[in-house]
Order: sequence, then structure tokens, then C-alpha cells
Amino acid sequence: MLRGVTSAGLGSIESEERMIELAAAYGFQAVDLDAAALIARHGVDGARSLLQQHGIVLGAIGLPVEWRTTEEAFRQGLEKLATYAAAAAALGGTSCCTYILPSTDLKPAPFMAQAARRLRTCAQILGAYGIRLGLEFVGPHHLRTQWKHPFIWTLEETLDLIAVIGEPNVGLLFDAYHWYTNELNVADIEKLRPEQIVHVHINDAPDVPVSEAADNQRLYPGEGVIDLAGFLQGLQKIGYTGVVAQEILTEAPSTESPEVLMQRSKAGFDRVFAAAGMA
Amino acid sequence: MLRGVTSAGLGSIESEERMIELAAAYGFQAVDLDAAALIARHGVDGARSLLQQHGIVLGAIGLPVEWRTTEEAFRQGLEKLATYAAAAAALGGTSCCTYILPSTDLKPAPFMAQAARRLRTCAQILGAYGIRLGLEFVGPHHLRTQWKHPFIWTLEETLDLIAVIGEPNVGLLFDAYHWYTNELNVADIEKLRPEQIVHVHINDAPDVPVSEAADNQRLYPGEGVIDLAGFLQGLQKIGYTGVVAQEILTEAPSTESPEVLMQRSKAGFDRVFAAAGMA
Amino acid sequence: MLRGVTSAGLGSIESEERMIELAAAYGFQAVDLDAAALIARHGVDGARSLLQQHGIVLGAIGLPVEWRTTEEAFRQGLEKLATYAAAAAALGGTSCCTYILPSTDLKPAPFMAQAARRLRTCAQILGAYGIRLGLEFVGPHHLRTQWKHPFIWTLEETLDLIAVIGEPNVGLLFDAYHWYTNELNVADIEKLRPEQIVHVHINDAPDVPVSEAADNQRLYPGEGVIDLAGFLQGLQKIGYTGVVAQEILTEAPSTESPEVLMQRSKAGFDRVFAAAGMA
Amino acid sequence: MLRGVTSAGLGSIESEERMIELAAAYGFQAVDLDAAALIARHGVDGARSLLQQHGIVLGAIGLPVEWRTTEEAFRQGLEKLATYAAAAAALGGTSCCTYILPSTDLKPAPFMAQAARRLRTCAQILGAYGIRLGLEFVGPHHLRTQWKHPFIWTLEETLDLIAVIGEPNVGLLFDAYHWYTNELNVADIEKLRPEQIVHVHINDAPDVPVSEAADNQRLYPGEGVIDLAGFLQGLQKIGYTGVVAQEILTEAPSTESPEVLMQRSKAGFDRVFAAAGMA
Repeated sequence: MLRGVTSAGLGSIESEERMIELAAAYGFQAVDLDAAALIARHGVDGARSLLQQHGIVLGAIGLPVEWRTTEEAFRQGLEKLATYAAAAAALGGTSCCTYILPSTDLKPAPFMAQAARRLRTCAQILGAYGIRLGLEFVGPHHLRTQWKHPFIWTLEETLDLIAVIGEPNVGLLFDAYHWYTNELNVADIEKLRPEQIVHVHINDAPDVPVSEAADNQRLYPGEGVIDLAGFLQGLQKIGYTGVVAQEILTEAPSTESPEVLMQRSKAGFDRVFAAAGMA
Repeated sequence: MLRGVTSAGLGSIESEERMIELAAAYGFQAVDLDAAALIARHGVDGARSLLQQHGIVLGAIGLPVEWRTTEEAFRQGLEKLATYAAAAAALGGTSCCTYILPSTDLKPAPFMAQAARRLRTCAQILGAYGIRLGLEFVGPHHLRTQWKHPFIWTLEETLDLIAVIGEPNVGLLFDAYHWYTNELNVADIEKLRPEQIVHVHINDAPDVPVSEAADNQRLYPGEGVIDLAGFLQGLQKIGYTGVVAQEILTEAPSTESPEVLMQRSKAGFDRVFAAAGMA
Repeated sequence: MLRGVTSAGLGSIESEERMIELAAAYGFQAVDLDAAALIARHGVDGARSLLQQHGIVLGAIGLPVEWRTTEEAFRQGLEKLATYAAAAAALGGTSCCTYILPSTDLKPAPFMAQAARRLRTCAQILGAYGIRLGLEFVGPHHLRTQWKHPFIWTLEETLDLIAVIGEPNVGLLFDAYHWYTNELNVADIEKLRPEQIVHVHINDAPDVPVSEAADNQRLYPGEGVIDLAGFLQGLQKIGYTGVVAQEILTEAPSTESPEVLMQRSKAGFDRVFAAAGMA
Repeated sequence: MLRGVTSAGLGSIESEERMIELAAAYGFQAVDLDAAALIARHGVDGARSLLQQHGIVLGAIGLPVEWRTTEEAFRQGLEKLATYAAAAAALGGTSCCTYILPSTDLKPAPFMAQAARRLRTCAQILGAYGIRLGLEFVGPHHLRTQWKHPFIWTLEETLDLIAVIGEPNVGLLFDAYHWYTNELNVADIEKLRPEQIVHVHINDAPDVPVSEAADNQRLYPGEGVIDLAGFLQGLQKIGYTGVVAQEILTEAPSTESPEVLMQRSKAGFDRVFAAAGMA
């Protein structure tokens, strides 16, 4: 498994270029970033060199298509997807992720039909560039009632969504916070096949009742109560060999310097990987 | 358009063979029936002859797969689908229909994902035999709250379900009662392309507020308040040339003889087709 | 059916804007053109006004993706497809067409697998914008041996390709020259359902043995030996109500003025539509 | 990886029940067999007990549908597929395999379109029961010209077929003989992801030029010239953990007793697994 970072948890880090530098300096191997933007700034060769020089691989890109609202918004976003996918592929990327909010103001059944269809079109385009689409189920309980109607939030429901999308390149973005707030255990990870997991996000949760763990109160790995050793061991056991990137959503970005936060991140990874008996 | 009958509206008609005879005697051209059962009783050649002698074509078969409940029930029903489809195809049939209840005790979004996936598998199998799958939206208002959660009941929502199923051989079972209780008009029919309609059911509604028209209080064509002339003209205008079969759901089967009911059906069709300016 | 023109048959017509003007002046109702380019020059509103003022609808756009060669070429072209589809949709277009050469230097079976997959991705993207994809089988015999191996050229083989692509928005570009050089007849048209035909091209063939009719020796409708009255009657009989656009491929573009050629085109259409008993 | 046997290589073994017994007695863990037939003879519980008592898991079932010839033959075979899949699933099976002959008397491009469509329908049905479909490319050179036209035989071409089928549950039946006769090497295995391999067949080849190695002249593992240590190490390296079943196709079934042949099989497996540094 490769250790990765996302911008969430690095405070006001000034650029993705700085993320790449710091990630390398602190022993990370992957960075989730906007590949198209990096190529826009450096050209394909320049972006590749930047990553290579730092020994960093592209983690995941985000899905730049708004599939959650109107057909018009979806069609507009779709116009850029192929270019984004080409950019990620040019930098050796193979993963594109999007989150599924657990509730919605829209009627849930019709929205599910529209969402699955739009995500299938996205998956088809991504697949042309060798990119896999990872869908993230979102577990924090408060979000289940933030909008009018329940949508989906469990692992099983997300596997059902993947099944109805029906494309060979769709799987999970498996995030520790959502595994934890869904009250899943290591056995639930062990039932998965490694190819069902496109990308992994790691983080920790505060010592509050699980139903109160809010989505934007995440901690660095090892600073909270999630059984991250079990989480990592489960992933290793099933043979997942992809990226494990930290995503520390907080109410406001930290005011600490990116260097301090990167050091804290590294310490967190060292802690939990060691606890899991892994390098 | 071909005039057809289903068993709903023919009282305690004793057999599908009798349905075929009476349908022919009263000027009908199509019968919705269980093709596999007819072939089981007569063999393929015998069933074909029976239909041909009476100048009757096979309307639609019902989908013999339980897709609304558990995966186990679905898998069991799936084992017979190919044989049913082959039977329908052997008798020249091209349509298989199923209804969508407008509410459900299941969580609507996960159920939509499962339903769409199961219906896609059914459509794939049916397609191998040249059979199209017609999905029927169900409009009566009382059914929208009969189960815990709204599912889907409008024309647009059903077109979204067809779109997410994503197979080329899926369309609508367009039933006058559901067009009426969805408070749609002729312009809504005129926006459709004829190939979006796999099969049509015709019937009439009692003179009560539309929100009170119950699913099992249907009348024979022309005996109620539905604008069936507009309904038929809309279908003709878009170029629909398939079967229009009556489906008169009632609280209890009529005690009248099938002959009397068939005469009433014929009178109903004559009335509304004449009102629509069609033979 | 709407009468349409393509640039093929209008000599050195200077612009698509001129095509629109002349088409309107000579009683045509549709023009196949590059919607994205028209919008680039006039903006969406300007392009819409231009079409509306002239009473012209957008016929079909061409598929701007190179699906016949390398995966790299395909991926590059795919980046623009969504924008092209959005442009066509913005101008009320619903059709995008591509031709299938009947022979290939590539190994035919692997090429079929790649072609079908790439066309499915194209169809998915087009479908998001309400655009249908029409595949044109190409009949002239000389093209069957122009490249090393036979690929596909019959109507049935093209229907098989459409079936394996498996998307609901894929059908035929039905061209009279290829109907003729495949030695099909009116009964073959009558077996089709109207929705199987996305777009129609009309033209005529020289009085030579059909096996010698070359792809770039086409004549204006009514000037040759194709039974265009039967062709049009067959389309009408099955209920095709789309565009019939002329496509007159010649060895070199005519040196006649576009006005003269448009007059010749109009005369051709008048002749064959009258022969078919249609306005 | 689990060691498995198929009936090919066990001479005139009298029954699948005997295969299960002997397999267990000689240290094998899986048997490829006809699950539906086993259940027909023993009932579901009886068949499960039989396997469980012997510590044997179901390897792969064969695809009981004739997809290589006419649509009629395909439709007939399709009627039994769901029941076969249910049988395999009931016995814990997850794999169904079929071979792709490298040449055909049919026109290759149209046949590819038909084959891919039919295999997609099969995959859809199998998928409803949790079964994956493994496609076997067939490498022996003599078969490439046994029928009139080349079809497909390379790993890459088979991956293209899998891609156009487009279902998430389709992968490879990876057979050592076809890896060898395609002159592939260990690096070619290492480029695969484990989930691309549904099932593995192992065997060995005579010491003749590779272009002369005939499909029915296979040897037991370790008795020939295939680098089976490299083959197994490649599979292990990518994380394949499924069944490796021997399939020894010979011109005529051996007259040796099944016990002798099973001993020879065990010795073969021991030899090559040891050479690969695996238990």
C-alpha cells in the first residue's frame, strides 16, 4: 500500500506543487490532486518530471462532473471529463473518486435512477482512459438527516449502486471515517475483494459516541478512536495494494504551517502502520 | 392499432383458450396470455394453430420473475424467464410487461438500484428472444401511500428508470388509468416516440375526483370519464401501431358471463375508437 | 420526412451559412452541418436564429472521433465529443452519424471488438445530450476489397453491430447507394422499425452493373437507376419521419455554382418524391 | 492458490463422484465439474455434503450455452443457463468458463459482434448468481488455420473481447498451454491484475517447436517444457488466489487407471509447485 496525502489536512498549503514537495520530504508516495490543472501549469512532460523527481505518484483525481443536481449541470460538467481523464492517465493515474451524500432533498428513488445513469456515463468516459471510478459512501449520522430524505450510506447499498451502474471499472472509495460511522468491523473489509476498492482514505475520529462523530471533525491517523490497525490489516489481508491517502476534514483549515501538519501526518501514518504490523 | 383483451374484465372466464375464441368472435385481434402455459397444453404447433385459426395474435406476456423483493426470489424466478421468452417468441409475441408499484416498504433508493439491475438482467434475457419489456407506471393516488415510502409513479420517473436500465428493448406499458390518475394530457402522449411504448392497456375511470379513483374500480372503455378519444388519438398521432388491450381491474371478478362481458368490451372499444375517429 | 442537404453535392459551396440560405431558398428543410463550428462563429443564440429564420433544422452532425485506428487517436477525439454533442443539442439536433468501411487492413475480429467498444462509449456520451448515433453500412463492391480483409457491409451485419454496442440510442444511417449496392429491395426496408433508422441519405447510381457502381460516382436523385420511389415508399410505410438528406459523393467537387447544383438537387427531390406519390 | 483437477487427464474416470474422492485422496482441493448434474443426482444438500466431506470446493463449471453457431442454438442453450448458474452458486462455485477457438468458418467481424453480444447475455445471467465468466484464448498454431478465417487467439485480443462485452464479471480462463503457444512470458502475467483471471488451467507441452505443439498433445505438469515455475510465480506475484486445475487434453483418453493418473497428476503438481517455491 502506498501512503498518500490529500489537501485536506495540510492547512493552507499554497499549491499542489508544494504538496508534492512536502509529501516526498515526509515519506509519502502519492498525492491526490487535480491532474489537469498541474498539466495546465507544467505541460505533460513537466508535470511528469515534477512527480518523478519527487518519487510521487498521482493518487486519485476528483470527479469534475456535477451529477447530483440537474441534467443541465451534468451535461455541462461532462464536457470536461474526457480531458480530465486524459490528464490523469498522462500522469499515470488510475483513480477518480466522488462522494455520495447519505440524504437528499430530491425524491430518492428517481434520484437514484438519475445518479446511476449519470455515473455510468462518467465511468464509460473514464474507462476509455484506463481510469477507475471510486464511489465513497458517507457514514456520519448527522448527514443522514441533513437533507429531507435518506439516500444511501451503507457499504452494501453502495455495492448495489456499483452493481446497477454495471461498468467493469467502478468500485469503492473506502474511507476509514465512513467505515467507522457505519459501525463496520474488520470482517466487513475481509469480505471484500481487493478490486472492489479503487482508493482508500484514512483519518481518525474523536472520542465521542459514534452517532455524534461529525464529518468535519476528523483527526490525524492514530489520534482518535478508530481501529486503524484493524482497518489496515483488513485491507492488507484482502490484498489491496493501492493508495491510502489521508483526508482530514475539519471545520476550518488549520492555521498551523503545512510543514507542521505534514510532520503530524507522517507521525500519524507511522503510528498506525506500526500498530498494524506494517512498515 | 390492434384491439386486445386481457383476462381482467372477462369475469370468471374458464381458460385462455376460451379467451381466444371469444376475442375472435367479438372482433378483437390480440390476447395477453401465458404463452408458456398455452404451449405446455398444446405444443408449439398446436398453440400457433389455435391463435392463427382465430386470427388472434399474442399481445403481451407478464414478467414471471419476482424482482420486487429478495435477491433469492429474483434468482428463483429468473430460472424460468428464458423459457417463457422462448414461448412468447414461438407464438410471435414481442412484448412482456410488469407493473411498478408507486410506494414500497423498502428503502426507496437502494430498492431502485436493485430493481433497475434486476430488470436489466430480465431485459437482456428477453432481448435474446426478440421480446421487449414494458414497464407500467401506476398512478392511483391511494397506492402512493399504501406502503411506507414513495417509489415512482410518474411518466417522467418511469422514463428515468428505463434510461438507467440502459437496454435497447425496454419501454412503457402505457395504461389509460395511470395516464388519467397522473393527470397527464394528450400533449404528454404526443411528446413520446412510438417506440417508447411497448404495449397499451385501456380502461375507464368512475366519475369521482381523480385523487379518489382507485386502482380496482376500473370501468369498460367509454363508461367513465377518461378522455379515451384523446388517448387513442395521441397514440395514433405519434405512430403507435401495437396492441391496445383492455384491463378492467375490479374489486371482485364480475359474475356476468364472459360472453356478456366480451359484448360489453366490444361495445366499449367501438364507442371509444369511433369517438377517436378510428375504425 | 424532411428534405435535407449535405455539403456533398453542392460543389465548392463557400460556407455552412450559405448552405442554410440556399437550402431554404430551394425548399429544403434540413442541413447536415458542423453544429459546434456554427456555434463557434455565431454563438448559440445566433446559430439558433440563423436556422430559425431560414426555417431550417439541423440534420445530422458527423462523429468527430476517430474510432477506426488507434486507441490513442480515439482518446484524443473523445475529448471533444461531449462539446460537439452539446452543440448539436443546443441547435435542436438529435442525430450524429458515422460510416463503417467494408474492409480493413486490421485483423477483422479484434477490430470489431475495439470498434464496438469505442462506439458504445461514443453512444453513451451522445445519449447524455439526447443525440442518437447512426451507423452507415457501405455497400459499393470495390470498397470490399480495397483493404486486406472484409469487415462488414450488409444491413444484417450492421444490425448485429448495433446489437453488440447495446445502447438504446444507436441505429442506422440508411443511405440509398448502400441499399442499392447491397442489392436490397423495398421488402428489406419494410422489415425495419422506424426507430432503427436515425438518418437517411439519398442519391442515385449510374447505369452500370451494380458491382461496378463506385462510391464516388453518385448522381442526383432521379438521374440514375436506383428505385428511389420504392426506397422512399418503404421508409414512409414503416413510419420513418426523419430527415432524408442528399449526399452526392463525386470524384471531384463539381465546378458548377452552388445555386445551379441546389436547383439540380431540388429538381431531383421533386422528381423522386413525386414518383413515390409523396409531396 | 488451490490445486484442482478436471476430467481431462483422469482417463476413463467413471463419475464426478469418483473424481471428488480421488481428488481429495491425492491432495487436491478443487474439482471442475457439472454442478447441475451433481445436484440432480444428490440434491443440493447431498451435493454440498459430498464436497464438504472430501474437503473439495467446486472449481469451474463449463458454459452450457452454444454461443458459437446459430442464434437458434444460442437461444435453446440459454434456457438452461440460469439453472446451471444457480446450481454452481448453491455449491459455492463462482466460476464458469468457455473457450474461444482461434479460427472460424464464419465471417470473423460479424461473428465477433454476435459472439460478444451472446456472451454478454450469458455474463448477465451468471452475474445474477454471483458467477464470473472466464474466457479462454486458445494458442496452438494448428488451430489458427483449422477453419477458414483467423478469429482471435492472443491475450490482448481476448482482453479486447472482455472489454467489449463490458460486464463487470468477465475475465480470463488462463491456460498454461495457451500462454506457452502464444509465446508469452512471465512479464505478460505480471501485467495482469488478479481479478482479470477467473480460473487457471495447468498442463505441460512436449519438446517440439512451439508452432507444432498440438492442442491435444498435452502432458502432465512438469513432464514437458513449459516454464510452469515461472507461470505459477507470475500468478502468485500478482496475487491470484483462485484455482489452478489441470487439464490434460490428449488424442485419446489414457487407458491407465484413474488412480495411476491421479498419482501422476499429484506428482506433477508437487514438482512444479516446488520448483516455483510454493507449497
